[in-house]
Amino acid sequence: MTSSDTVTFDSNRSVANPPKLRPGTLRIVALGGLGEVGRNMTVYELDGKLLIVDCGVLFPEEEQPGVDLILPDMGHIKDRLDDVIGVVLTHGHEDHIGAVPYLLRLKQDIPLIGSQLTLALIEAKLQEHRIRPLTLTVKEGQTEQLGPFSCEFTAVNHSIPDALAVMIRTVAGNVLHTGDFKMDQLPLDGRITDLRAFARFGEEGVDLFLPDSTNADVPGFTATEREIGPVLEQKFAAAKQRIIVASFSSHVHRVQQVIDAAAKHRRKVALVGRSMVRNMSIAEKLGYLHVPEGILVDLKDVEKLADDRVVLMCTGSQGEPMAALSRMANGDHRIKLNQGDTVILASSLIPGNENSVFRIINSLMYLGVDVIHKGTARVHVSGHASAGELLYCYNIIKPKNVMPVHGETRHQLAAAKLAHQTGVPVKNLMMCDDGTVVDLKGGVAKIVGQIDIGYVYVDGSKVGLVTDEDLKDRRVLAEEGFISVVCAVNRQTGKIVTGPDILARGVAETDRAFEEVKPKIAQALEEAVRDNKGHTTHQLQQVIRRVVGSWAGRKLRRRPMIVPVVVEV
Amino acid sequence: MTSSDTVTFDSNRSVANPPKLRPGTLRIVALGGLGEVGRNMTVYELDGKLLIVDCGVLFPEEEQPGVDLILPDMGHIKDRLDDVIGVVLTHGHEDHIGAVPYLLRLKQDIPLIGSQLTLALIEAKLQEHRIRPLTLTVKEGQTEQLGPFSCEFTAVNHSIPDALAVMIRTVAGNVLHTGDFKMDQLPLDGRITDLRAFARFGEEGVDLFLPDSTNADVPGFTATEREIGPVLEQKFAAAKQRIIVASFSSHVHRVQQVIDAAAKHRRKVALVGRSMVRNMSIAEKLGYLHVPEGILVDLKDVEKLADDRVVLMCTGSQGEPMAALSRMANGDHRIKLNQGDTVILASSLIPGNENSVFRIINSLMYLGVDVIHKGTARVHVSGHASAGELLYCYNIIKPKNVMPVHGETRHQLAAAKLAHQTGVPVKNLMMCDDGTVVDLKGGVAKIVGQIDIGYVYVDGSKVGLVTDEDLKDRRVLAEEGFISVVCAVNRQTGKIVTGPDILARGVAETDRAFEEVKPKIAQALEEAVRDNKGHTTHQLQQVIRRVVGSWAGRKLRRRPMIVPVVVEV
Repeated sequence: MTSSDTVTFDSNRSVANPPKLRPGTLRIVALGGLGEVGRNMTVYELDGKLLIVDCGVLFPEEEQPGVDLILPDMGHIKDRLDDVIGVVLTHGHEDHIGAVPYLLRLKQDIPLIGSQLTLALIEAKLQEHRIRPLTLTVKEGQTEQLGPFSCEFTAVNHSIPDALAVMIRTVAGNVLHTGDFKMDQLPLDGRITDLRAFARFGEEGVDLFLPDSTNADVPGFTATEREIGPVLEQKFAAAKQRIIVASFSSHVHRVQQVIDAAAKHRRKVALVGRSMVRNMSIAEKLGYLHVPEGILVDLKDVEKLADDRVVLMCTGSQGEPMAALSRMANGDHRIKLNQGDTVILASSLIPGNENSVFRIINSLMYLGVDVIHKGTARVHVSGHASAGELLYCYNIIKPKNVMPVHGETRHQLAAAKLAHQTGVPVKNLMMCDDGTVVDLKGGVAKIVGQIDIGYVYVDGSKVGLVTDEDLKDRRVLAEEGFISVVCAVNRQTGKIVTGPDILARGVAETDRAFEEVKPKIAQALEEAVRDNKGHTTHQLQQVIRRVVGSWAGRKLRRRPMIVPVVVEV
Repeated sequence: MTSSDTVTFDSNRSVANPPKLRPGTLRIVALGGLGEVGRNMTVYELDGKLLIVDCGVLFPEEEQPGVDLILPDMGHIKDRLDDVIGVVLTHGHEDHIGAVPYLLRLKQDIPLIGSQLTLALIEAKLQEHRIRPLTLTVKEGQTEQLGPFSCEFTAVNHSIPDALAVMIRTVAGNVLHTGDFKMDQLPLDGRITDLRAFARFGEEGVDLFLPDSTNADVPGFTATEREIGPVLEQKFAAAKQRIIVASFSSHVHRVQQVIDAAAKHRRKVALVGRSMVRNMSIAEKLGYLHVPEGILVDLKDVEKLADDRVVLMCTGSQGEPMAALSRMANGDHRIKLNQGDTVILASSLIPGNENSVFRIINSLMYLGVDVIHKGTARVHVSGHASAGELLYCYNIIKPKNVMPVHGETRHQLAAAKLAHQTGVPVKNLMMCDDGTVVDLKGGVAKIVGQIDIGYVYVDGSKVGLVTDEDLKDRRVLAEEGFISVVCAVNRQTGKIVTGPDILARGVAETDRAFEEVKPKIAQALEEAVRDNKGHTTHQLQQVIRRVVGSWAGRKLRRRPMIVPVVVEV
């Protein structure tokens, strides 16, 4: 391959502040979702108006201890909220809607645009935040003029019903934003990704295409959800006692198949887990989930039923420690599992969760439970289009420019290479990070700048208070613990009144080890006070920090956090 | 399946202290390696003498922050070290030899028995600990009488050369302990797992069989190492610039294939990483690695070579942050990778390391590096026998009793089910945890007790000082940080002299938030001193802990560690 044939992130590296946006040019900036799977949020700007597509959260990794959620960095738009026309939500998954409450806290009357189910899910979530949003419900085939953006909504198939792609027509050009999708040709609800619409958009001209890249490095085609039903039925037929199925709480079609298999085998179903109960109640009310009369029972009534008449449909398939499945595995749940029960993990295994999930599988197996998971049976299919499906898309749409979104670097590159193989020139592949600024006009897309994008951490009730510095402290505390040294000093006499006292936590040392350093601290402190009575408390604390830090490094071969406290009396 | 057909850990649950061991009965206790992959160590006891097989380490998970290694719990033998005849080391991997230095620190003259390469590797490691061990080098086919244990050593094939199984003959019965193995029928060095010996042992009678269970839940057969060579060659032929191969530092055959491919494509090889350099130098000296004259170069000379003449063979394939590969990905290494370079991860992906490894892959790809890994090409095969191979073993050996070792619960159960399918009755399957006591006599194996086995943590230079309580502290510190409150109190006047001062680290709060709680602390303290002058310092600190803890829970919705310090003046 010559260099012009190689897809890289190169173009992106030398760019700095974007130029002022000219009238009639469309600007696209992702505030999250690039280089990561999560916190999807893309801002379209034209003639002073902003249209946002999706507003999701990212789940933290072990490098971010104590963090609950990570939000898109909204700094880019926070002073321009009055210019926001609305937020299009492509579907109801957390990585696409989870940050909406935090956006609406900044300005409550930003309209939300989405399908019936998507809006119902976000409304339920906003209710917990005591926010009643302005909404506009749209359907596939519908077009809405949102400021300078004409949005046509199109059906796409995904692992949640009622997902939409959006074709955004503007004076600057046409953009097709898929949201998450796959191309199951035999979906349970018959609602396929609308390739006829994609073809029509292609004929008309798609100047910029933003496809879901998540599975771009998976060869072939994602299997149909329909293949799972027979496997579930077979496992249900073989099960002699209770069946517990764990999956995602928004996967309506998966739950539907569990309910259908239960009905066939004359079992009752109890939904377990707050989000499972809430989402399925919404899905049923709106007609997305079909529940035969009398099949659902309350968890508390399960114990009255014979074991071979029970299915528990629960959350916790990713090993979340507080979820029902984990508690059942540890014997901390009212449902006590034992030999002969069957647990089916009808879910993916999200990278990073392997240890937690296998810990649960081992614990269940130790109890004698028969555990079935995607490693042993086809009880899960992905929600994202694989490489083969993306090739269909590129060939039908023939986009002028492609900006792969919704993926890590490796996914974005794979998606770009597929585009290139179908004929998109390398220079028309927008390889972007969060904050990379792409301008589009007259069929030409160009990276014109880069804005700073940080992680915005949610920790408990606090948003954005946890800094990367705090997380560094937490990692040090986790690895090394801390040593606190307390000393009361009389400045007049230059003498130590009390201490030094040492308190250590998380440091693997005996109290005796610390006795050794106390005289060194005392000596250094008294010298410091004697030599220069002008020392500030802070300077005296620095003396302690130096003595203890170098002693711990030398003698203990450790680098704990040193917390010196000098009290002047 | 009837209950007697179901393999479970049941038998194990009700047992308590083992009975006194009678003369002529063989007792088997694993001090590590069951329910986990790592810290393999099995103790055989007969007529007052102990034979140990393997003595390895376990690598910690994210639940064990700051821990470097986890050792087998040697409490069971620590008062009986004079009875230890020796330690048989089946092969030179860390999970089988890594804890030897810690055992020899307890008693330096315990003999080590193993193959030439295995002993060379442990001797190099012991040199760093300044220990010169007593050793007995053995070969396949050789029998040694070790106290009451007659040990015949047998060649097995694994992902390190010179691995041995051991047939232990005693008055109580015969035990075949495989160590780690697979049954590559075309290994690079021609040294296959000796099924003729296994057949002979079977004819003679194997009363208890302890097989490597690691891949028992993987269907079929592990592919031959030989398949990797052509793939490497093809990638080497296509590479236009530098090639970096990452793998395990003990995988002599993998390195051999890299060297062979490099020689064929007229590239020089630099070994990178301390353990890689050390192990390969040992392997070459002993004749396990064949290095063509002049092919190896020093890392510092690599820069003088043209990019298409270079291969770097390095460690870090599991994403270890300090290893060469990770530093290259982050641009922190003297070798600066860029567009057109090729990185091959010729390694497995150990569960739990996914995030770190994919982070490196993403960073490399972002630099424009072509990354090849086992997900995209056959550049790795496992070192362990899959289900198909284990079936061959069971059928050739026809063991009376089976105790699956070297695996998590799910692996042990899979190995046991395979044994059962070949005809081993369920009651003859020893489903054991670490510390489960199995007695063998006259062809009958029985679980007779359970001894307590804990985790022994190595943290820096300290062994066993870190407790589970410390780790709990560390996890709290990581998730929540700490709030330290310092107050100087004059007991005579009952007044606070200085403070309360608050210092928080890792807590996501503004300083202003803490101002709110200070008067509450002061008030509670003064009340406590006023009400009862007999309060100890500890009690006053408890007062602070209560006030701050409940305030943080209520107002901040957090549970940080509270560190109260009261100085009495």
